[in-house]
Amino acid sequence: MNMDIGIIGGSGYTGGELMRLLACHHEANVVAVTSRSRKGQKVSDTHTHLRKIYDIEFEDLSMKEVASRSDIVFTAVPHGTAMQVVPALLAEGVKVIDLSADYRLKTEVFEKVYKIKHTDPRDAVYGIPELHSEVSKQSFIANPGCYPTGASLAAAPLADAGLIDRAVFDSKSGVSGAGAEPSIVSHYPNMAENIQAYKLTNHRHRAEIVQELTRLDGKLKKISFTPHVIPSVRGILTTAHIFVKKEIDINELTDIYANFYKSNPFIRLIKGIPMLSGVRGSNFCDIGYEVEQGSDRIVIISAIDNLVKGASGQAIQNMNLMFGLNETMGLWTPATAP
Amino acid sequence: MNMDIGIIGGSGYTGGELMRLLACHHEANVVAVTSRSRKGQKVSDTHTHLRKIYDIEFEDLSMKEVASRSDIVFTAVPHGTAMQVVPALLAEGVKVIDLSADYRLKTEVFEKVYKIKHTDPRDAVYGIPELHSEVSKQSFIANPGCYPTGASLAAAPLADAGLIDRAVFDSKSGVSGAGAEPSIVSHYPNMAENIQAYKLTNHRHRAEIVQELTRLDGKLKKISFTPHVIPSVRGILTTAHIFVKKEIDINELTDIYANFYKSNPFIRLIKGIPMLSGVRGSNFCDIGYEVEQGSDRIVIISAIDNLVKGASGQAIQNMNLMFGLNETMGLWTPATAP
Amino acid sequence: MNMDIGIIGGSGYTGGELMRLLACHHEANVVAVTSRSRKGQKVSDTHTHLRKIYDIEFEDLSMKEVASRSDIVFTAVPHGTAMQVVPALLAEGVKVIDLSADYRLKTEVFEKVYKIKHTDPRDAVYGIPELHSEVSKQSFIANPGCYPTGASLAAAPLADAGLIDRAVFDSKSGVSGAGAEPSIVSHYPNMAENIQAYKLTNHRHRAEIVQELTRLDGKLKKISFTPHVIPSVRGILTTAHIFVKKEIDINELTDIYANFYKSNPFIRLIKGIPMLSGVRGSNFCDIGYEVEQGSDRIVIISAIDNLVKGASGQAIQNMNLMFGLNETMGLWTPATAP
Amino acid sequence: MNMDIGIIGGSGYTGGELMRLLACHHEANVVAVTSRSRKGQKVSDTHTHLRKIYDIEFEDLSMKEVASRSDIVFTAVPHGTAMQVVPALLAEGVKVIDLSADYRLKTEVFEKVYKIKHTDPRDAVYGIPELHSEVSKQSFIANPGCYPTGASLAAAPLADAGLIDRAVFDSKSGVSGAGAEPSIVSHYPNMAENIQAYKLTNHRHRAEIVQELTRLDGKLKKISFTPHVIPSVRGILTTAHIFVKKEIDINELTDIYANFYKSNPFIRLIKGIPMLSGVRGSNFCDIGYEVEQGSDRIVIISAIDNLVKGASGQAIQNMNLMFGLNETMGLWTPATAP
Repeated sequence: MNMDIGIIGGSGYTGGELMRLLACHHEANVVAVTSRSRKGQKVSDTHTHLRKIYDIEFEDLSMKEVASRSDIVFTAVPHGTAMQVVPALLAEGVKVIDLSADYRLKTEVFEKVYKIKHTDPRDAVYGIPELHSEVSKQSFIANPGCYPTGASLAAAPLADAGLIDRAVFDSKSGVSGAGAEPSIVSHYPNMAENIQAYKLTNHRHRAEIVQELTRLDGKLKKISFTPHVIPSVRGILTTAHIFVKKEIDINELTDIYANFYKSNPFIRLIKGIPMLSGVRGSNFCDIGYEVEQGSDRIVIISAIDNLVKGASGQAIQNMNLMFGLNETMGLWTPATAP
Repeated sequence: MNMDIGIIGGSGYTGGELMRLLACHHEANVVAVTSRSRKGQKVSDTHTHLRKIYDIEFEDLSMKEVASRSDIVFTAVPHGTAMQVVPALLAEGVKVIDLSADYRLKTEVFEKVYKIKHTDPRDAVYGIPELHSEVSKQSFIANPGCYPTGASLAAAPLADAGLIDRAVFDSKSGVSGAGAEPSIVSHYPNMAENIQAYKLTNHRHRAEIVQELTRLDGKLKKISFTPHVIPSVRGILTTAHIFVKKEIDINELTDIYANFYKSNPFIRLIKGIPMLSGVRGSNFCDIGYEVEQGSDRIVIISAIDNLVKGASGQAIQNMNLMFGLNETMGLWTPATAP
Repeated sequence: MNMDIGIIGGSGYTGGELMRLLACHHEANVVAVTSRSRKGQKVSDTHTHLRKIYDIEFEDLSMKEVASRSDIVFTAVPHGTAMQVVPALLAEGVKVIDLSADYRLKTEVFEKVYKIKHTDPRDAVYGIPELHSEVSKQSFIANPGCYPTGASLAAAPLADAGLIDRAVFDSKSGVSGAGAEPSIVSHYPNMAENIQAYKLTNHRHRAEIVQELTRLDGKLKKISFTPHVIPSVRGILTTAHIFVKKEIDINELTDIYANFYKSNPFIRLIKGIPMLSGVRGSNFCDIGYEVEQGSDRIVIISAIDNLVKGASGQAIQNMNLMFGLNETMGLWTPATAP
Repeated sequence: MNMDIGIIGGSGYTGGELMRLLACHHEANVVAVTSRSRKGQKVSDTHTHLRKIYDIEFEDLSMKEVASRSDIVFTAVPHGTAMQVVPALLAEGVKVIDLSADYRLKTEVFEKVYKIKHTDPRDAVYGIPELHSEVSKQSFIANPGCYPTGASLAAAPLADAGLIDRAVFDSKSGVSGAGAEPSIVSHYPNMAENIQAYKLTNHRHRAEIVQELTRLDGKLKKISFTPHVIPSVRGILTTAHIFVKKEIDINELTDIYANFYKSNPFIRLIKGIPMLSGVRGSNFCDIGYEVEQGSDRIVIISAIDNLVKGASGQAIQNMNLMFGLNETMGLWTPATAP
């Protein structure tokens, strides 16, 4: 089953990462990559690491044209823009995976959190395959945010077990999460040897975490989230400070996690503490944990690559499932370490 | 008032940092620096940044000899070793500031946390001058740990106000906190582009945080602490997730902090979010915060340089106070930024 | 053609990198990985990024046993050790690629440079396939050093054209080149925000560069080399300051390079200036250059990943050729960027 | 002697660094800092590390007004702009140190290199005090470029001895050298784990190096220079590959350097190899070297902090000399290490 693939908005990090990963996918063939501002330029002039791997150019195409060439289209555009292109693609009958935030939340939540009117209210399955077995039956997927992927996977088994009283997610992201555009925050002299907390209490991604965890435990209310940027390019380490309703020991905890993730190849439950180096460049999510003795406190650590499991890799995993392929196809590659 | 200064254990980072800072202190004169293993070597062969600034050598001296030369002695040795040298120094009548953990905790707590027998049980004032005005009357000070300094200063005003229900400290430290000795964790290819959580639930420094905050609020019980190492050399950023007993607004919070720290020159309450770059190399502690609307949650961020306000700078601040000097003498220097 | 592969000395970076790359090679099957000190431990306990990818253990095996299981064996052991294991492997008739320095130089040069007696003098082809078409006919290859790969590829076309009067190679390597063992140099606080020049005039790798370039131009004598370690994990950027016998213009230079490398898939001649980010994790060697107007000076920049094209990737490229496979098999993957 | 100081253009790195260093200078008092775009904003809102140290605001002042308040004025504006403000300042009789490139080169050279017309041709002393004893008699100084300072100090003793046949300077700079404005090059994901060579054969700073070295040796012609940016914030390491007219041994070389720099407190001749960590934040220039045995080749390494000895620190050193003060006043502080 050879799939022709279109990418709307290919000049940013998620677009480049889709191409990097698809270069090693045996059934995938990138046939169209759009960028208005870089129309006619070689894709590899922007993504110089793709030289000799891709010889194609950015094009400025209608959605109809992209759909006609493709079996599936990835939309890698900013939120607010996706809702302008997705309807036209779906109308052509092509499968779509949207990497923006536009379809991740219920419409009323989206409008409240993003403070813009949604012009294409539409239900979509939230594409964390480990938490949504219904992915394989979809023709449209809302690909999750990077922080919510790391946080939800860290806490989902405990939420599913109804054990969480309070969850505090303290996340540390690499700088690539802020995109390919230079800014004061991403200026090397500002970011090196530094760490920047931001959106201390009200980051937009909190809504996705709440959505996913309350889906598993409707009574769970106390969910906090604070993100930080650290001097790394890739990766999100999430420290989940979980306070449980009743004390459990490490063996019970291990059983809960092992059972919950028993069919998920990309989840690695490890005995030590996960690090970014174990997942960099790969689609794995490493999870480790510790129970505080004589206490209601559990600390869970998850590590993902924000551009892979947190974006483009997860999108390809969703694509595989939507086409009935093994979800690991093209993604069963180790992290680049050291 | 010219002070002669001895340093016991001068080959590590805190010893080197004492010398770096004292080089700019007009009343200080370093007269003895001990190191058994480096006896006879120039101090600046180990601390190469001190070349031309210090021309002295490491010596292997008795405590009696060091005391006889000095007005004050800093002990910069590992925990367990300090208790072997401090009594002999104090017996000679010299002032002492111990940078190890040996005298920071009540003896029974120390023995439980560090799992060794204390051979010199003795009361000492815990040297965070902002929280212990009695420092100026002491001849012996237990200089605080780096994490507890950042965490205690972040939460002290709220603890003092009796408002805290639960405090979760998620701290991020530079690699210099692990000392000058190479290790697997500090190996550049392991640490670069990475972040390492450790001691998820039971780091020894938690006991100091508990001691300081319960001193301000005897009813406060729920105190959690998880440290991380980030790819920076210096600095500790502490994210304090505070859940309060009753909601307060940002103005009340600002008043509480401004009032609590109104006489403390090294505390900078800032409107934005503190970063390591603002304090690197300096003795400042920057504090910022945000209140989650309609919630019991407050997030407080503190930033210090772990080797300065978290160790050697705070020790000099204590020294200044013990000698009746302005606490800022030799320390009123800006951070090195960018 | 499915190949069974043995690795002697699998606990270091080159051993780990062989496994990382071979995981994506469709005809390769790693059947034996030796390590005396880690015998019985899972390979993925050392190389944690290989968890779930490799389930094998380190073994302590005789060369005979490894050879009996394997179609080809990679020796990833220190220099001086390789000469103790290679003869036994070759005696069993198995193909061997040695990643150490033991067989790269003529015996008399080796003994002079490494100051040890060679116990197994033996001719070997020096495995830079772009410069040694005879690789494909060999059963034993001496895999080149990392610096010599970058330097030789940068200057070979000009040497081949007989144009070089003087060549000064100023190379900048990532820290992984120093291996997996922690040291003072690789200690994060020493290496971050720093750069360390070393072996200013007499690094051992100079002998390999001299060997390769004088092979192309027997009259070339003036070859200098100075290496540096920069705060990056992977990669070698080589700045080749070339002074030519007669001035040539940029078009002539471009023709020389394009012609010389016209059949080499892993060489990418680019118009701009190569960077490590373009090759990180990949087997590509990017080359760019500039001619100083009205001068005898040409500056050539090459970028490789020291662990891939500078070690394990090049070894696999050699393996492919030795087995008559396409040299790009398993290696046609883009760099991990950003 | 208390000096009132004005700074024209205080929002960039060199302006901020002047203030950081002057905060520790006992005879200096910053009385005016101009910035058109930030008029009315606190200086410490831009340079957040200066909070509580400086309480002044940026002003938009005429040169006449700045001159009337000041004993000396530092112009920290881009090249091309300095020539528009310096004449007005000098006309008021105030001392001036210009940190731009406008007055460093002879007018005809400047116009050729910078490709703009000079509107204020004027002789100025090039302010490397170690090479220009006439600094102390000046009322106007052209403060040198960062690369030329490191390169010239590395090679000056050999040039002065008339020994150099060819000098190849391969320099590695921290990212702060590119200024405070974000750009594609300084974007953290582009710069981390990378190194960027640029202006391979024709960087503007080469003209300053040529000017300084040919001033010492009029016959010296072969001078090459290639700069690189490394993932460090501060510092320039210069690797000077020197080919000499006649072989000299290490003792002769040591005598030449020791004699040449015998009266210069900021030059540290060291036995090992200089590193950025030894000079970061300080005004020192560390120099080390090695002679290749049986060869005409010498490698000299110099390390400076580009913002201190390469810019603002050297400017203050010049100021001290212009006012008859000890050149080390306010600058005798060790590097911030680790």
